[in-house]
Amino acid sequence: MPEPDFAVWRARLETALERALPAASEAPQRLHAAMRHAALDGGKRIRPLLAYATGTAFGAEAAALDAPAAAVELIHVYSLIHDDLPAMDDDALRRGKPTVHVAFDEATAILAGDALQSLAFELLAGSPFADDVRVALLRELAVASGTRGMCGGQALDIDATGGDALSLSGLERLHAMKTGTLLRASVRLGAIAAGANDSQRAQLDRYADALGLAFQIRDDLLDVEGDSATLGKTAGKDAAQAKATFPAQLGIDGSRARLQALADEMAAALTPFGERTAALAALARKVIERSH
Amino acid sequence: MPEPDFAVWRARLETALERALPAASEAPQRLHAAMRHAALDGGKRIRPLLAYATGTAFGAEAAALDAPAAAVELIHVYSLIHDDLPAMDDDALRRGKPTVHVAFDEATAILAGDALQSLAFELLAGSPFADDVRVALLRELAVASGTRGMCGGQALDIDATGGDALSLSGLERLHAMKTGTLLRASVRLGAIAAGANDSQRAQLDRYADALGLAFQIRDDLLDVEGDSATLGKTAGKDAAQAKATFPAQLGIDGSRARLQALADEMAAALTPFGERTAALAALARKVIERSH
Repeated sequence: MPEPDFAVWRARLETALERALPAASEAPQRLHAAMRHAALDGGKRIRPLLAYATGTAFGAEAAALDAPAAAVELIHVYSLIHDDLPAMDDDALRRGKPTVHVAFDEATAILAGDALQSLAFELLAGSPFADDVRVALLRELAVASGTRGMCGGQALDIDATGGDALSLSGLERLHAMKTGTLLRASVRLGAIAAGANDSQRAQLDRYADALGLAFQIRDDLLDVEGDSATLGKTAGKDAAQAKATFPAQLGIDGSRARLQALADEMAAALTPFGERTAALAALARKVIERSH
Repeated sequence: MPEPDFAVWRARLETALERALPAASEAPQRLHAAMRHAALDGGKRIRPLLAYATGTAFGAEAAALDAPAAAVELIHVYSLIHDDLPAMDDDALRRGKPTVHVAFDEATAILAGDALQSLAFELLAGSPFADDVRVALLRELAVASGTRGMCGGQALDIDATGGDALSLSGLERLHAMKTGTLLRASVRLGAIAAGANDSQRAQLDRYADALGLAFQIRDDLLDVEGDSATLGKTAGKDAAQAKATFPAQLGIDGSRARLQALADEMAAALTPFGERTAALAALARKVIERSH
């Protein structure tokens, strides 16, 4: 099985983001420059790749998937900007570059995140789908971004930091919301855009939920094992902030075993689809094996 | 002409917000409590009243307008939370209550604003309109919230604070973006929901643009003339922060004269619609005459 051509999708995404983002020469310049600093040229782009891989597997053209892929990445990028703020994780390095509040200033970082969120919904509202599909895409992304999803998970994470230790199920719930919902939304946006049926969507959810958890366990392991230069962000920060993590709960070997079980779960979820979900299988491997 | 029953619409809005906002008893409790603190029971509710007044004038039922009215208010409330943050205007008092970062904490205030923005779009995506109408509502609100609207205007305001004096046209552009686009969007959401035609919408835009500018001039005058107890927020803060304002540009008498000219402009814009826009005319008077 040949490696799917992720480079092509990444290039499509970059072009789509470049077109969607306001020019840095246009006022307010500082705000636009900050949005571009955060959104362009960086990151693994896992979420948009999931949208492209799912959508094309179920018959959508890559060109039609540009808007959903870019929209979900814009939501992710806005959340990174806000999570990095001094009042939140207070981080200076992201994707190998200074964070937005360091490169610009805090007020600009807050506004850039806010404007990127609006832009994600604007992009979906103007996407080349029938109205009912656009409404479904918008609703999926809005719910995944809100208190039952990403924002809610981040709030649980803050509540848990430095406090009483979370149970393993509490930790899983936190990450299912904080990271999992947006990863699942990436898969779902692709499935909605391609018109996948309900039973296909349920099977894809099974894949996406395992992927979300695997992603977080890998992230926690990297924070323990990695170095800042490879990560492109500060290493060792979970322990320093007394954050609840999977290695702290399961140990390093236990976390690796759990990761392997999730890899098996993802493979099983994709089996009924055969070769057409080869790119999703490859993304599962990327998430399990990634070194940054 | 009897005074329109704004109390009924305000009560509808409060119920709609109450239903849309997650319960404070549901995790993450602190985030939900902060969202409710900011959104419920406060403010003049000018934006939702504009949506109700416009929508019912052109034939929509008030019940159908609950979602657009609540969505535009949620966007406004999120922007207030973020504008009040220490890195932005650093304000402790809003709508007569402590601001969210004071009553809770900065991280919660950032997240509460973020989640309220998502909720606004979720609400519109689930609103009781045909798909094409929902897409139009979503697009209007997303564009009005972003860099060509509210966020962009806030960025221009920050750029202008303490720097070189803005020209009068620069100041008008700033406020047309910062305050004007969301007020105009409130009117437009009502018009879209009611299926107003293009020439009606153009006439309503003329009203809304004058209203947006009048709103800001009145705000600036109140900051000079008012006291914090009546305002429900800190008075005299524009001068303290060396902000560009209309009284600084036009003088107090000049600002009042401009306000009267805008009142005439709004009345002229509504004339073709006759009695059915009585509530919009009453809202224009409220904006011109308000003491807080």
